Amino acid sequence: MKRIGKQTIKFDSPPTIVDVASIVGPKEGEGPMSKYFDVCLEDEFWGEKTWEKAESKIIKETVNKAITKSNIAAADIDLCFAGDLLNQCISSSFGLRELQVPFFGIFGACSTFVEGMCLGSICIESGAANNVLCAASSHFCSAEKQFRYPLELGNQRPPSAQWTVTGSGAVIMSKEGEGPYITAITPGKIVDMGIKDANNMGAAMAPAAFDTLITHLKDLDRAPTYYDAIISGDLGYIGKDIVIDLASNKGYNIKSVYNDCGVLMFDKQSQDTHSGGSGCACIGTIFSGYFFKQLKQRKMKRILLIATGALMNATTTQQGESIPGIAHAISIEV
Amino acid sequence: MKRIGKQTIKFDSPPTIVDVASIVGPKEGEGPMSKYFDVCLEDEFWGEKTWEKAESKIIKETVNKAITKSNIAAADIDLCFAGDLLNQCISSSFGLRELQVPFFGIFGACSTFVEGMCLGSICIESGAANNVLCAASSHFCSAEKQFRYPLELGNQRPPSAQWTVTGSGAVIMSKEGEGPYITAITPGKIVDMGIKDANNMGAAMAPAAFDTLITHLKDLDRAPTYYDAIISGDLGYIGKDIVIDLASNKGYNIKSVYNDCGVLMFDKQSQDTHSGGSGCACIGTIFSGYFFKQLKQRKMKRILLIATGALMNATTTQQGESIPGIAHAISIEV
Repeated sequence: MKRIGKQTIKFDSPPTIVDVASIVGPKEGEGPMSKYFDVCLEDEFWGEKTWEKAESKIIKETVNKAITKSNIAAADIDLCFAGDLLNQCISSSFGLRELQVPFFGIFGACSTFVEGMCLGSICIESGAANNVLCAASSHFCSAEKQFRYPLELGNQRPPSAQWTVTGSGAVIMSKEGEGPYITAITPGKIVDMGIKDANNMGAAMAPAAFDTLITHLKDLDRAPTYYDAIISGDLGYIGKDIVIDLASNKGYNIKSVYNDCGVLMFDKQSQDTHSGGSGCACIGTIFSGYFFKQLKQRKMKRILLIATGALMNATTTQQGESIPGIAHAISIEV
Repeated sequence: MKRIGKQTIKFDSPPTIVDVASIVGPKEGEGPMSKYFDVCLEDEFWGEKTWEKAESKIIKETVNKAITKSNIAAADIDLCFAGDLLNQCISSSFGLRELQVPFFGIFGACSTFVEGMCLGSICIESGAANNVLCAASSHFCSAEKQFRYPLELGNQRPPSAQWTVTGSGAVIMSKEGEGPYITAITPGKIVDMGIKDANNMGAAMAPAAFDTLITHLKDLDRAPTYYDAIISGDLGYIGKDIVIDLASNKGYNIKSVYNDCGVLMFDKQSQDTHSGGSGCACIGTIFSGYFFKQLKQRKMKRILLIATGALMNATTTQQGESIPGIAHAISIEV
């Protein structure tokens, strides 16, 4: 691999994404992406007693499904990267504790899914691993309870709020295979523009997405139209518009190729999620559900995934802090 | 690099640890390791209004000190790996938000410091980065508040409890330099032996430390005495004894070379921490403070760091869950 420009790493023997899996909750199963997911659950508990245990079960079963689909034995997976939004990333560590695969816990908030794929790619091309598993999860109920208010309170959500996606996405990556290939990654810096509204995550994360996007394009000397699709993780309607504006101000017209998984996940009219979807599972399930299939079927040939994360918690908001954002980008080509 | 045995990765051109830094709190500054740390704080707040902000300041200043000591410009650091024990790893992300270095947040509970060094080493040898920063922090007051009880309650601690170390350790690693070198790493699997007592972390994490230690020794066909010191992160007195027993049952006599940073940090008689120290900063500060200097001065030539983490949170304990443990090992030689 080679370092190119400021922050980009380009692979000489790009790792393959062998297979993927996605499981989503009932609301996501009623949305426009429904038919692309492996499983749409009928309720938020999935037979468990708590939302946290349900989220653990979701990531566990998503990972099992990805492994089965990949035809790679669990014993041949050398490393696992996983994380989630819950305090101390418990849904990953409890969900994957029986996996018996060396485990690197990661936390990039909603950027976790792509953070894992960045690190997994480096491990594969370097020879540190032949096969790598990456997974991330989120759950509307466990996230609301932890980051905002008890669901039982029936609190009103402001128009800028986003709806945490219930679900999990998992990918199995390998040294060898027929693609799609991870050809380059651009790990992002923390960007904090002073946004303090914890109900406007899109605005807080958009500057980080913009920073990573422009850095990626400059580092590789690419126009936005090099890609069939540039996809951010969970900026929602508000954050998406901010990225388009910021890019336009710098002379990049991204409108024709750019979209956001938070915008794609729910139907704006009928599902009432205000500014759209969010959470680690937002880009995790939409990539694993929709975009991976588009690449496999050659309907798309090059995409850029930019997963965004808001690196705050409930305490920092109470203490009056602003919200640091981050975004990691990964170029996937067939 | 090469994969050897079940889980170990051995480096062909081992990355160098260029320099390190450590800042600790007042209690740690009164302990037996005091003289090895760069800074011992006079109080737990360091001029900040909250413990969380104080912890962010500690990791920030530790990282700044490590960068200054290394003589590598911040602009030449290609990647940063950092994490901590606070919900959503806020002390790292807020402490390092002005750093302007591509940032991978990691969460391995108290194994975070060595997890970062594992990933950093892979990135350096592979060419993904020339210089990497790894850091981790913990803070007694912010951790007690979050994981156990409000400090103001003056709750009694059981004899198996450990004392979270206030402080931060940081290392700068590089492609080139005179060592000490990171020669091999053994990333660990999650091990859960069913321990449910959140006041006995040493017992919960010891089986993971044992598993990673024995795997490392077998993978590389080494006896424990290959190392001048085998050092676990924060098992404390109880966990340390369990590891010695487990190893002995498998025919490994590690007593002469093995110690634990939780045991080393505080004076058993005068400092009353019950089973010893814990927290990400425990191995972070003792490696950066004490062991790095032993290696630099050639008083030790080969050490094995095994950082251990308990992958639980307050909610999992309330929900009656057991405590999954993890341990990552790293071999450092001159």
